Amino acid sequence: MILDKVNMPDDLKKLTTNELNTLADEIRSLIIKKVNTTGGHLGPNLGIVETTIAIHYVFDCPKDKVVFDVSHQCYPHKILTGRKEGFTNPEKYNVFTGYTAPEESACDLFKVGHTSTSASLATGVAKARDLTGGKENVIALIGDGSLSGGEAYEGLNNAAVLNSNIIIVVNDNDMSIAENAGGLYQNLKLLRDTKGKAELNFFKSLGFEYYYEDNGNDVQSMIEAFKKVKDTNKPTVLHVKTLKGCGLKAAETDKETHHYILAGTLDNTGGGSAAASVESYNSITTDFILDKASKDGSVVAITPATPGAYGFTKDFRKKLGHQYTDVGIAEEHAIAYASALAKSGARPILSVLSSFIQRTYDQLSQDLCLNTSPITLLIHWGAISGADSTHLGSFDIPLISNIPNMVYLAPTNKEEYIAMLEWSMGQNEHPVGIRVPFGAVKSQGVSDFTDYSKINRYKLTQTGEKIAIIGAGNFYHLGMRTAEEIERKLGFKPTVINPLFLTGVDCDMLNSLKNSHNVVITLEDGCLAGGFGEKISRFYGNSDMKVLNFGGKKEFTDRVPVQELYQRYHLTPELIIEDVLKLIPANV
Amino acid sequence: MILDKVNMPDDLKKLTTNELNTLADEIRSLIIKKVNTTGGHLGPNLGIVETTIAIHYVFDCPKDKVVFDVSHQCYPHKILTGRKEGFTNPEKYNVFTGYTAPEESACDLFKVGHTSTSASLATGVAKARDLTGGKENVIALIGDGSLSGGEAYEGLNNAAVLNSNIIIVVNDNDMSIAENAGGLYQNLKLLRDTKGKAELNFFKSLGFEYYYEDNGNDVQSMIEAFKKVKDTNKPTVLHVKTLKGCGLKAAETDKETHHYILAGTLDNTGGGSAAASVESYNSITTDFILDKASKDGSVVAITPATPGAYGFTKDFRKKLGHQYTDVGIAEEHAIAYASALAKSGARPILSVLSSFIQRTYDQLSQDLCLNTSPITLLIHWGAISGADSTHLGSFDIPLISNIPNMVYLAPTNKEEYIAMLEWSMGQNEHPVGIRVPFGAVKSQGVSDFTDYSKINRYKLTQTGEKIAIIGAGNFYHLGMRTAEEIERKLGFKPTVINPLFLTGVDCDMLNSLKNSHNVVITLEDGCLAGGFGEKISRFYGNSDMKVLNFGGKKEFTDRVPVQELYQRYHLTPELIIEDVLKLIPANV
Repeated sequence: MILDKVNMPDDLKKLTTNELNTLADEIRSLIIKKVNTTGGHLGPNLGIVETTIAIHYVFDCPKDKVVFDVSHQCYPHKILTGRKEGFTNPEKYNVFTGYTAPEESACDLFKVGHTSTSASLATGVAKARDLTGGKENVIALIGDGSLSGGEAYEGLNNAAVLNSNIIIVVNDNDMSIAENAGGLYQNLKLLRDTKGKAELNFFKSLGFEYYYEDNGNDVQSMIEAFKKVKDTNKPTVLHVKTLKGCGLKAAETDKETHHYILAGTLDNTGGGSAAASVESYNSITTDFILDKASKDGSVVAITPATPGAYGFTKDFRKKLGHQYTDVGIAEEHAIAYASALAKSGARPILSVLSSFIQRTYDQLSQDLCLNTSPITLLIHWGAISGADSTHLGSFDIPLISNIPNMVYLAPTNKEEYIAMLEWSMGQNEHPVGIRVPFGAVKSQGVSDFTDYSKINRYKLTQTGEKIAIIGAGNFYHLGMRTAEEIERKLGFKPTVINPLFLTGVDCDMLNSLKNSHNVVITLEDGCLAGGFGEKISRFYGNSDMKVLNFGGKKEFTDRVPVQELYQRYHLTPELIIEDVLKLIPANV
Repeated sequence: MILDKVNMPDDLKKLTTNELNTLADEIRSLIIKKVNTTGGHLGPNLGIVETTIAIHYVFDCPKDKVVFDVSHQCYPHKILTGRKEGFTNPEKYNVFTGYTAPEESACDLFKVGHTSTSASLATGVAKARDLTGGKENVIALIGDGSLSGGEAYEGLNNAAVLNSNIIIVVNDNDMSIAENAGGLYQNLKLLRDTKGKAELNFFKSLGFEYYYEDNGNDVQSMIEAFKKVKDTNKPTVLHVKTLKGCGLKAAETDKETHHYILAGTLDNTGGGSAAASVESYNSITTDFILDKASKDGSVVAITPATPGAYGFTKDFRKKLGHQYTDVGIAEEHAIAYASALAKSGARPILSVLSSFIQRTYDQLSQDLCLNTSPITLLIHWGAISGADSTHLGSFDIPLISNIPNMVYLAPTNKEEYIAMLEWSMGQNEHPVGIRVPFGAVKSQGVSDFTDYSKINRYKLTQTGEKIAIIGAGNFYHLGMRTAEEIERKLGFKPTVINPLFLTGVDCDMLNSLKNSHNVVITLEDGCLAGGFGEKISRFYGNSDMKVLNFGGKKEFTDRVPVQELYQRYHLTPELIIEDVLKLIPANV
């Protein structure tokens, strides 16, 4: 293997063109094998192999600085910067993160997992260089899909006036995770079609020097392209045409499916397609939307660029037709757009991942809640999880639930979820968020007839004594298990409450608990700081009630197995009961 | 007065060209007089008079829909849509808000006070029209300054592919609040210089039909321009050159000073310039930055477009030279840029208003805190206030303090503020926010030698018994006044604590209070939900300590006098003591 000779970028510089080409093939094979074993980002990494080799051939990392946007496409970079074992040795497949990580290598500048950030970050790196007298190149590598995000534009607009060296490499594979959305993509197509020669040029309009390279999957062409821009003293865009999934037929043909794959997908042993036949909260959601949309022409489903995460398949999107909008990686626009749709008599329903709703605080506050627009906002993957530190689902409750006028609901099973969807889509008073349950579908067996227009009215599901357990959303079931365990171990039946609402306190119910309870336990599947339980603690602050809040700590965890986090945060019936007994050992 | 004949937009359509011109003069005079009496946005409104008259002459509001970006420039619109009394009758000067307000008129679609939102909102309005079979025109009116915000770009990128009627009117007066920042502005200049004929065109690159009008302050030219784009079936940009401050010499000449003026400014009775000689937290900040920057070439002061709010005068900016960056209305970029500067060895210090830091949650979380970049972030105007509902400073504590790794400090006087600035700018471990005290400068008389590297260590400032008052930031002084009042009325000395840190709990100190205290009172100058006090309540949940949290309610208030809010939220010593006595009437 040529790769045997390559540990760090400097090793590349000794290779011949033929060896570099062979190296590209080797890297591609390693990525396919590794990703098909562990799951991961496939298409973006296959497309960027040659560009990455050329970067490290032409530039001198870590002296020269490369900032990877979202870093979906950093696997070849990792292989070439001291971390190839993570790809050659199956036992080390999980040693390195799927994103750039400064703790792994001096060639990685930032932890990045949210998109559209590279131009901004690189502008800061370049400005620091200018202030401290450095001379190195600063390179941002951004995909065409990431250009739809507002932060990317803000970064480009500022990079363009830096008046010194900064090189924005636009890796244009004509795809976001799904198809690209937005007017910019017509211009990128025009530029590709004219090999960069069209006068109408988004990048030039912002003031960049502009270069185009049509052979982004040819090492030698890319080396020459980078040589042209190296050591430039002007903000420069190098627009490179690449093929997403390059070198793997299936990934080249069906780019969306192969953007990120589960383990075993390429051998048809992956869980992806089989799961479709099993009922999931995704299938419940898509069934609901199709039904609503067919009955009401003003219903619009909206996603910011990750339709696959919600089960919004190509078939589903096709069925919805003009009643579906993918706004691109533009969560801010998604919220403002939905707010305006709702205010203008349409029925928007918007799906966003917990981790990405973070991109919209101001839009939730100003565009949406200040205008009390009745949208339905579905927050997916909101849960304490073993995810990468860049994709945690622990912060949506603190983020959303402290914004005035918002109603944030936490269903605990499918019947509640459907009833909440129905209520939300039929009302005109409130911006409504629903935290879609995480995990396997649970059922209460009968339909839910709760009147959700009675805001902040909690549901008492088990009347008991001494201890009351308020289990929110996903953790209602943990609450029930804890209640059973208390009854078994301590010999009395505690009260159990399903709060339904995360945005407020049911004063009547909480006051009524004071008569026959000494302890209230709150459970939430997310970060405690700023979250649901603290509101209950505040409520009881002036009373004799003891309150114990259970949930996640305020911290960024990184691929920590969820069971380990449950132990750390005392999120099992046994550990909860231990804490309660510590509090009042003799007799609650 | 011609205006006597005009109450609603339809009345305009009966006027001759001469009458319309006279009307423009009348409106201009009314705005100057009113704004000079009450304070308000002057320059933007003077520049947009003729455009607004022409919009209402050509289109049919409220059937046709106009979305005002940030709505700094909606005064002429208000005058022409049933609200002229708010400008003709001094007694009604304060009846209407300074922004669009749907509750005032069917011609106002949204409450808007944060910028860069109109293209997104208008896209939603237009899509709803298309879904429900409407035919009306949808118009977004956006200033050139607002185009630097990411949400504006996301909106434009999506508006461009709407495939039906949407008209983006770009009101280009070649100014943001201060000078424009970013590469886009070179393109706008090129377009103005070529009267819209240059091939290189930002708007066309996004896919818009494009029209240019050079005479934005001529009613007849604007009428003709709007007639050309009315009823278009394609996403269209009408780029209009206007003069900010048009018709008032002082405002035309010094555009920045006259963007927003205080009452009396035009008669030289305004507070603006006189204030400069008095020490303020702004002057302390600018003195500190100038000193640091002169000693360390890597210090960079950053603002997102509102330098005046922080006392960053032209002279100050000139002194800093390349050590100052105004990034435009691009708060997201500002945070990422600062994070990268800090990671690359520079010393960024970034000033943002409390209300606008809302635009950066994800950047604070991902670009900044996940990377633990040691920036200094100054949050100004963080306080419960009588502001407009779009500019409240009540939400920065819930927003910032629940993000992992962040250190958010709340100085209570100038010595603490300076010590915190010094510490933050000299350390390499933490992203640090400082909530700049609001109001007149307070002094403790001696320098502050606190070691702020001891994170979450609170300061005990008065040792007492029974009641402990934790007064954060601005409200530390309310805490002291309350303590004095308790001593006077109840005959014992309560403990007083200055927490200094908003992002964590001093467990040792809070535990030590348990011995000789029954009640802890927390005071914070902001929204309670998700804020500081709730963390104290959670801490004491398993103990006998009673906790009372005082602060703002989770609500959008709109120009409610601050004293009225203090009454509403029980933020006076008398009302606090009342609540304490209700809790334990006999004997604390």
